[in-house]
Order: sequence, then C-alpha cells, then structure tokens
Amino acid sequence: MKKYESKEIHELSGKLLGQEMILEGWIKNHRKQKEFGFIDFFDGTHFKSIQIVYDNKLSDFDKINKFHVGSAIRVEGKLIESQGTGQSYEIQASNIILEGDCPEDYPIQPKRHSREFLREQAYLRPRVNLFQAVFRIRSIAAAAIHNYFQERGYVYFHSPIITGSDAEGAGEMFKVTTLDIENIAKNEIKDIDYKKDFFGKKASLTVSGQLQAEAFALAFKKVYTFGPTFRAENSNTKTHASEFWMIEPEIAFTDLDGVMEVEEEMLKYVINYVLTNAKSELEFLDKFVEEGLIKKLENVVSKKAVKITHKEAIKILKESGKAFENTPEYGQDLATEHEKYLTSEHFNSPVFVTDWPKDIKAFYMRLNDDNETVAAVDLLVPGAGELMGGSQREERADILEKRMDEMGVPKEELYWYINLRKFGGCKHGGFGMGFERLLIYITGVENIRDVIPFPRTPNNCEF
Amino acid sequence: MKKYESKEIHELSGKLLGQEMILEGWIKNHRKQKEFGFIDFFDGTHFKSIQIVYDNKLSDFDKINKFHVGSAIRVEGKLIESQGTGQSYEIQASNIILEGDCPEDYPIQPKRHSREFLREQAYLRPRVNLFQAVFRIRSIAAAAIHNYFQERGYVYFHSPIITGSDAEGAGEMFKVTTLDIENIAKNEIKDIDYKKDFFGKKASLTVSGQLQAEAFALAFKKVYTFGPTFRAENSNTKTHASEFWMIEPEIAFTDLDGVMEVEEEMLKYVINYVLTNAKSELEFLDKFVEEGLIKKLENVVSKKAVKITHKEAIKILKESGKAFENTPEYGQDLATEHEKYLTSEHFNSPVFVTDWPKDIKAFYMRLNDDNETVAAVDLLVPGAGELMGGSQREERADILEKRMDEMGVPKEELYWYINLRKFGGCKHGGFGMGFERLLIYITGVENIRDVIPFPRTPNNCEF
Repeated sequence: MKKYESKEIHELSGKLLGQEMILEGWIKNHRKQKEFGFIDFFDGTHFKSIQIVYDNKLSDFDKINKFHVGSAIRVEGKLIESQGTGQSYEIQASNIILEGDCPEDYPIQPKRHSREFLREQAYLRPRVNLFQAVFRIRSIAAAAIHNYFQERGYVYFHSPIITGSDAEGAGEMFKVTTLDIENIAKNEIKDIDYKKDFFGKKASLTVSGQLQAEAFALAFKKVYTFGPTFRAENSNTKTHASEFWMIEPEIAFTDLDGVMEVEEEMLKYVINYVLTNAKSELEFLDKFVEEGLIKKLENVVSKKAVKITHKEAIKILKESGKAFENTPEYGQDLATEHEKYLTSEHFNSPVFVTDWPKDIKAFYMRLNDDNETVAAVDLLVPGAGELMGGSQREERADILEKRMDEMGVPKEELYWYINLRKFGGCKHGGFGMGFERLLIYITGVENIRDVIPFPRTPNNCEF
Repeated sequence: MKKYESKEIHELSGKLLGQEMILEGWIKNHRKQKEFGFIDFFDGTHFKSIQIVYDNKLSDFDKINKFHVGSAIRVEGKLIESQGTGQSYEIQASNIILEGDCPEDYPIQPKRHSREFLREQAYLRPRVNLFQAVFRIRSIAAAAIHNYFQERGYVYFHSPIITGSDAEGAGEMFKVTTLDIENIAKNEIKDIDYKKDFFGKKASLTVSGQLQAEAFALAFKKVYTFGPTFRAENSNTKTHASEFWMIEPEIAFTDLDGVMEVEEEMLKYVINYVLTNAKSELEFLDKFVEEGLIKKLENVVSKKAVKITHKEAIKILKESGKAFENTPEYGQDLATEHEKYLTSEHFNSPVFVTDWPKDIKAFYMRLNDDNETVAAVDLLVPGAGELMGGSQREERADILEKRMDEMGVPKEELYWYINLRKFGGCKHGGFGMGFERLLIYITGVENIRDVIPFPRTPNNCEF
C-alpha cells in the first residue's frame, strides 16, 4: 500500500477514488458510536481535514474507539465516496494504528481557544485551524516574494544581521556581545574595553539591510533582501515585535516612480499568488477572522493605486470636515486615522503618498528641488495603513554629506556609503516592507504575535 | 528608445539585432584609440559584459574618450553583429552619457586584485567578476532551495533568531541585551538583574532552529527553515564564520532512510538548478578558481550516494593502509583527512555515514537498539567533507529524558520539547545544511569570507 498525503487526496480526489492507501497524521476530532467511529484526520499538508470511518468489524475496534484527540495515527484504508454529508469523500479504514498517544488533558481540544491562551502554547498552536491557515499563508507569501524577484532577475542579497554601525537610524538596537558582563560588574571594572569583545568593537543587531543593499544594487542593478531585523523598542502594541522579517529591494538607475511601480506590482503579485494557492485558508479566515477578507484582497489587486503628494494628502484631510483626534498639519507625519481616512474613505484604494517633509524622514532620501521635501513614498492600503516605505536615495555626495551633518549621522563610520556616490554612483531607489505587516493585512489577524511562529516582544522570549 | 538589460541581450541576442536601445550600467574596461573607443560594459544582470563601440563621429567623442573605469553610464545605440573577434554582437553607440563619474584612484581596476584586498573593499567587490559569479550563484542556489521545498509542499518556517534557551547545544552563543553595561560597570553593581533586561531574562542568538522546527513538523508534517544562525567561537579558519545561513528541514513520520533520501534529492536538485541557471558563472569559476569544478558537480549529480555505518567507515580507514595523521578509532569522530579519503579516494562519490557513537552526538538523536549508537547521519561529499548533518529524532519521551540527564541538558527549560513526544509524538527526523558550506562546494571558492556579502568573524564586523 502506498502512502498518500491529504494534499494529494484533496487535489486528486476524483482520480484516487477506490484507491487503497496509507495515511499518517493526527486526530483532530473523534466521534464515537457503538458500531462506528469517525475520525477528523489531518496531516498538515492541506488545510482541510479528511474523515476516517471505521466500524466494529475491525478486530481492534474497541482499542481504536478509545484513541484520544491529538494522537498520531497511521491509517490503512480505501478512499470512497462519502456516505454522509459535509464531505464528498472519506477513508473507509481497514486498520488504524496508534503511533503516538495524547493524554486526555492535552491543552488543544476540539473547541475554540482564546488567542491569548494559544500564544502560551505557541509550540502546539500550529496544530489548530487558525494557525494552520496563518503559517501556511506565511510560507506561501514568502515563496511568492522570492518568485516575484527571482523571475525578474533580482539578486537575493543576505544583508548582515550583526552590525558594527549604529547609524542605520531606524530604531533602538539590541547589543550583541560575548563580554562576561556578570564578571565585569563583580570585578568593578569601570570601563568596558570593547577591544576585548568578540568583534573588537561595539556590535548590534541590524534594524535594516538597506545601506548594504545599496552597495549590491550598484553592482547587480536589482537586488532584494529578505531576512530578520530587530527593534529594541519597549512598546507593547499589536503591530510591534522585537524581531520581524523585512523585504528590502534596491534598484539602480531608477527614480521614485520606478520604485512605486515595483511596490505596486509586487504587492499585487503576492496577493494574487496567495489568492490562488491558499484558497481554503483564506475562506476560513474570511469566515472566522475578517469578514470580507477575500473581497478586500481582490479589491486591492484590481485597483490602480492613487498617487498624491504629502501636501495634497494634508489638504484633503483638512478639507474633509472630519473631526480628527490629531489635526493634520503640513510638515507633519500622518496619524493612523489620517491613513485610514485616505485609503478607506476618500479613495477606497491603495494610496502612494510622496514627497515628504525632509525633517521627518531619513538622511539618505533624495532632496527635492524645493529644498523642503524628499523623494520618499509611503504606500498606504485600506485596512492596514502603511505597508511599505521607500525613497529615491540621495546620489549626490555633497548633498548627502550635508544632510548627514544636519541630522547628526556620523560620516566616518559610513565612509563607504558616501563612497558609493563617488565611485560610479547613479540614480537609485528602493523600499522596505515588513513581512508581518503584510501578513496581518493578508490574513486579517490583527496581532503581530499571531503571525510569527515564536514571537519576541518585551519580556517575552519563550520557546 | 526602450531600455534593455544585458541579460535580455545575451538571452535574446539574435532577435534583438538591429534594435535601437538604451543601456544603463558601468564601465568595466575602456580601450581608447584615436578614432574609436571600446567600452567593456556591464549592468549586473548578466555575468557576461557587452562591448560598446563608439567613434569620433559622435560630437561628444573627446568627452566620452575620457570616461574612467567604474563610471556609471547611459548608452544609446544599436545592437549589431560584432565587427571584431571575442563577441558575436556589440552596441554601436549613438550617444553615451555620464551618470556618475569614478575617480582614477578607484580601488577596483581592470586587473587581478588579491582576495584579501577585495575583502577590505567588501562594498565594492560585488562589481568584479569573481564576486559577480559567487553572489549571483548564492542567489540562484537560495532560489533553488526554496523551489525544491515549496514544490514538495514543505512549509517555510521562520525559526526565532533571539532565543532564551542556551540548551541548543550546537556551539558558543552571542548574548543579546539592552542592559546599559557600561553604567552597570561604572556604578559597581555586582549582580546583573536580568529581570531588567529587555526580555526579562538572559537572551542569545540562535545556533539552530531545529528544536522549534520539530514543533512545526508535528503540525505541518514537512517544514524547512532558511535563516541566519550564529556561533561565538573564536576560530579563524577558512570554513568558520560567526554569522551564516542554515537550511534545516524537519519531517514527521519518517526515519533515517527518509532523511537521507531528502538530503540526496535536494542536493542534486540544487546543483542541477545552478548548472542550468548559472552557466557563465560556473564556466568562469571552472577556468579561474577550481579546475574541473563543473565536472565535479556533474559527477555528484550522476552518482548515487553510498551508505555506510560509522563502524564500517572506521574499518575501511583502518584497512586502507594509509598513514593518517589522526588514527581512525571506533567510537571517535572522523577527521577531515578521513572524510577526504572516503569520498575522494575510496568511493569517489558522496557518502552517507550513519549510526554514530552516541557519546559524540547530540541528545536529541534517536538511540539505536544497540544502546551504543544513534540514528545520525553525516553526508560527506568529495572535495568538501561534511555538507549536511541529520538524524532521526528521539521520539520516546522516557529515553529522551534519560539522554538529557546523561548529557546535562536542562529539562525544565525544554519542557515543551519533551511534551512534543507526549502529545501525539511520532517518528520524525531532519537535517541541517550550512548554506555557505554548500556555496564553497559549488563555487570552488575556499574561504567562507568570500561567499558571504559582508562576513562576520572574530574582530571583523565591518560595513
């Protein structure tokens, strides 16, 4: 008898009817009757479970009848048209063998558990429907991102995780050290000698791979990163994690319009890919997590994103007649409520907001001719706010250095970044997308802790 | 005029002959004559450069004639059959515009630079042939790995980078902290209070995602990680880096034979993919880095790997008549020279060495019935030694706990790992492959510092 996976059965069901087969997986639910038993079976290869039917003609009926929810089993049987309702095919078992028992006090029972409870059981939660859906979509969306860039000739670039630079400027950093800090304290050593540390100097966890990606874009034209980044910010919100994955494409010989084109095309590609390859998962999420989820995603894919400048955005907000908690102001950042109004009420489509006031943006963004704004862009989407942030990079060494001085960015440390402008520099740009922010948007799950397998947040580093 | 990339030109050359086009990229070399100029042009999208020819009929001839190597240019011209030898087509330029100058003291000149020198110029080295080849292969091999697993229904699992566990046991760990260690020292605080640290306890950088991947394999059946891992070992060898990427597949309902099947199939898939998609790069490396490289790779793909036990390996070594520096001994690890003899001399093929002495392997490997060996496997390949290490995992909770006690692995911290055996546990296994080790093997480049964009090693954390 050949082994099959539930994915094959669901995808080839018609062709496999009548086939004898072996299945290996777990009991999701178990309904017992006097003469029959029904096992809701899953093996993790497909979102939908499979019904296993067995009857008391099996010599082990009494034993099988006592198998607990959560147990690992091996099923031998035949795929037949279902006699019952709720599924069109099922397995008529000729034998069911217990591979691994599960006690009755197993934390995951066939009922609704709270997300908070499941976070505490993070090593078991991938077994429940919600997280089967979320983490398979996480994998499928990651594949889509790689496919998108690889098909277009981008080079996948692994930016360094440990960095000796603290000038990346995107947020608070974690220190990385091998110094014996406990003994330094005990021995009353007053000055830390970083020469004795592993790297011979202070080191931290990266907050962005962009600066290094620029070096590679000026050699490979089109590159992208996809790796973990870190923020040591003590903020306990639904959208902040201390460790998260980012995608940072960087493209030579392009301007802000070119960057926006890639942002929009990539977003639509990834969403289409998930719509096609995670149908059952999205249907489940649409039903139980965010009503209208699929429609929302289809809407984004079909709409052409609007482009407005930051100035225009503020004007629209001011003229909206809305009583915002935060008054929209020229020269100021947009608040979440502003983003929401623009995307969900005013335009009902993704919105690129371009040309931001230079004082609230990073030193490497290209200064516009007005000397007041920079060629930066945020992509806002209905229902999630800012999804990507990009810019054309300042390619003029003199202006870059001036901006670094103004903003207190140490130039010595970033000599090589400045040199990129002197050694065959060119117009270039790129953007960053937080992978988990995309997943929150695609799955409708609103807490970042629920789209990361083992999330790290302040005071939480379990498993 | 439409923009083209050199990749399109090399792939579609026949169809594009006669086409007017714009190219954007860099000057690799520049030969100047009185009436003509020849620019060796590359834009990073294809390994091979393109010859740009211009003549003194261009009004800017005198200016163009002075463009330096390394400069960024925009070329307008027509793709024509080459008049010269060495290439079958070239661009007859109608205009060449300087996008970004490059001074004459540019560190990267059209000559052979030492690898040591280029490591110091890590932000510029991706522009030279060797690193154009290596880093494009890095990207292509990464894509191959994702394709292999995604096509087979594996779920891509992001294992946590920051871990609160120091029981992973694969090596020395970096500490991650936000404590103000300088002030702790200055203020003579004698006991570090980790409750005040970011995660409320000690935290480190992961050395392996395997234990967490097991939790996901027991929910999704087949998963894989592909992410950075870390070793704080103060070793300055050609094959050790402090930060490197690992691939760790984990599969439920499989045994050691199943693990080996995946190892071999994946290796051949990735090598075939690179052979197909990085032809020019491999030809270059074969010519200038490792003679016979392509033949070596083709040989591995065509050969079925041999399977021997550790005992058999020692027997072969003892009977070889070779004078090894390290005498091969039952119960002991294999030395590099032993691996070399087995793969390159004795078998001339990849070799799986299975069933290792339990005392030299990790606590989670499944104890064999002989009570002396574990179901572990190393895959050795000719010319690189150990490429992957895998095992069937101990699925029996009682034996696992006994092994943890014997080996001093703290059980409290890994309660969840033990629970995986109690809550529907099953036979399962997996393996780990260091991505850079694979790249060293595929590219022939022998130093790990030359296959990582910005390598981190003791006392080196530049860029």
